[in-house]
Amino acid sequence: MTKAHETANPKTFHFPIRVYYEDTDAGGVVYHPNYLNFALRARIEFEREHGYTEKDIIEKLNVLLVVRHVEIDYRAPSRLDDLLDVSVEIVNIGNTSITIRQEISRDGQVLAEVNIVLVAVSIQGKAVRIPPQLRQILGWQAE
Amino acid sequence: MTKAHETANPKTFHFPIRVYYEDTDAGGVVYHPNYLNFALRARIEFEREHGYTEKDIIEKLNVLLVVRHVEIDYRAPSRLDDLLDVSVEIVNIGNTSITIRQEISRDGQVLAEVNIVLVAVSIQGKAVRIPPQLRQILGWQAE
Amino acid sequence: MTKAHETANPKTFHFPIRVYYEDTDAGGVVYHPNYLNFALRARIEFEREHGYTEKDIIEKLNVLLVVRHVEIDYRAPSRLDDLLDVSVEIVNIGNTSITIRQEISRDGQVLAEVNIVLVAVSIQGKAVRIPPQLRQILGWQAE
Amino acid sequence: MTKAHETANPKTFHFPIRVYYEDTDAGGVVYHPNYLNFALRARIEFEREHGYTEKDIIEKLNVLLVVRHVEIDYRAPSRLDDLLDVSVEIVNIGNTSITIRQEISRDGQVLAEVNIVLVAVSIQGKAVRIPPQLRQILGWQAE
Repeated sequence: MTKAHETANPKTFHFPIRVYYEDTDAGGVVYHPNYLNFALRARIEFEREHGYTEKDIIEKLNVLLVVRHVEIDYRAPSRLDDLLDVSVEIVNIGNTSITIRQEISRDGQVLAEVNIVLVAVSIQGKAVRIPPQLRQILGWQAE
Repeated sequence: MTKAHETANPKTFHFPIRVYYEDTDAGGVVYHPNYLNFALRARIEFEREHGYTEKDIIEKLNVLLVVRHVEIDYRAPSRLDDLLDVSVEIVNIGNTSITIRQEISRDGQVLAEVNIVLVAVSIQGKAVRIPPQLRQILGWQAE
Repeated sequence: MTKAHETANPKTFHFPIRVYYEDTDAGGVVYHPNYLNFALRARIEFEREHGYTEKDIIEKLNVLLVVRHVEIDYRAPSRLDDLLDVSVEIVNIGNTSITIRQEISRDGQVLAEVNIVLVAVSIQGKAVRIPPQLRQILGWQAE
Repeated sequence: MTKAHETANPKTFHFPIRVYYEDTDAGGVVYHPNYLNFALRARIEFEREHGYTEKDIIEKLNVLLVVRHVEIDYRAPSRLDDLLDVSVEIVNIGNTSITIRQEISRDGQVLAEVNIVLVAVSIQGKAVRIPPQLRQILGWQAE
């Protein structure tokens, strides 16, 4: 289903998500904030694919990744029972932030595009630099 | 609107809740688990009415109240834009549990009835007796 | 993981569910109403396993199944990243209602037990008898 | 609490929102997608203030307003029991879209800024022009 994307960028991660009643609203479509749930689930599974849970990142790297900025472009609705594909592509890992691009698609059609900026904060809640180890964990290298 | 109930039991607390898109599902009605959100909001406001936030209860009484058992009877659906009345009536405070009865109504018609049993656990997660102070806080006295 | 149950009742269906941030609350555990999300996802997948989506049931049988009564017994908390097993066991299909028993477990420990009564309503919202075809679909036969 | 804003723009609408458990996650703060719930609740109440429910807009103007684009800037976390102020300011109503700026604040501190673009679609789901009547309803006039 996602073959086209995989060819386009072999490093892009894909995660399937089924739409249930809890995701929809009285308009008969997926309630618009819930695309951020789908996006986060895929990011968590991307980390797990690289061998790290959220707990690992907190405990081993002493940081929490928090969402600093989000942009969502909604192109077409999705509905109950849809099987969605959610992609995760690391766009950049800078000194203080991580930029991620995600697409929510159905049968190859992009329904929503999500752009996310994450920053790292210490357990005490202070902004800190992105741990270099995290670059490695997320399989990212500057080109 | 809730005069009948107030006559029936002057100690019953009432809290108004508006239905938004986030509460509904593709069936066009309030998604059934969300009645538990409404019920908890009303319990929290009932505590606040008695001068206590959740944080106060945790910090001053050293306990967390957690849900041990729930029963919900669904009688009629509610919809977007409905203005609901959610009641809170303490049925019993025993040594180890609190029993609460709640009704979710619209214009005097009961749409759902929720019966909840809460227990107290220490910050370490161990079951403990209900602090006597809590009886006072919740305005409860055995008849 | 669920071998014991499968031995106990070969007709019991099992569905795995991962706990994400969206499922948790500030208490650090799964927010109690969300077990009903997990239970419904498993019932939907159980129907799909039998070849029927919600849409199929609505369109082919002209009925909607709606929740009439719920009981949840909470025994132990679950947390972020937990991999849960959600079971679906048809207890009874009567003339006007379906009774279902579900367990949410982690590593064989039952964290919550959910008992649900569903009724059938027509598209116009009137209570109707359970379509005989539904008994077949759900693989149920009186013993 | 919101006096400063009201001075800045007398047409800005404000709506208070209390943070409950359902809004938080295991990180101990409000779960980031839920700011979109708060933003939508305030937009709905803004419409109601102008005498229109969602149902009115659908039935009288024959359009649905749907979210086409969202940007959220997260500046500081909010927590259980916080009383938030959510603002609604119409930035522009063009031929085919409405741009709205919203701030979620606590005690005058802006915690998150939300920028939203809405478009109108017919009941059949086709993009249509913004009905002129809607400009009036939302109290908007080009300067």
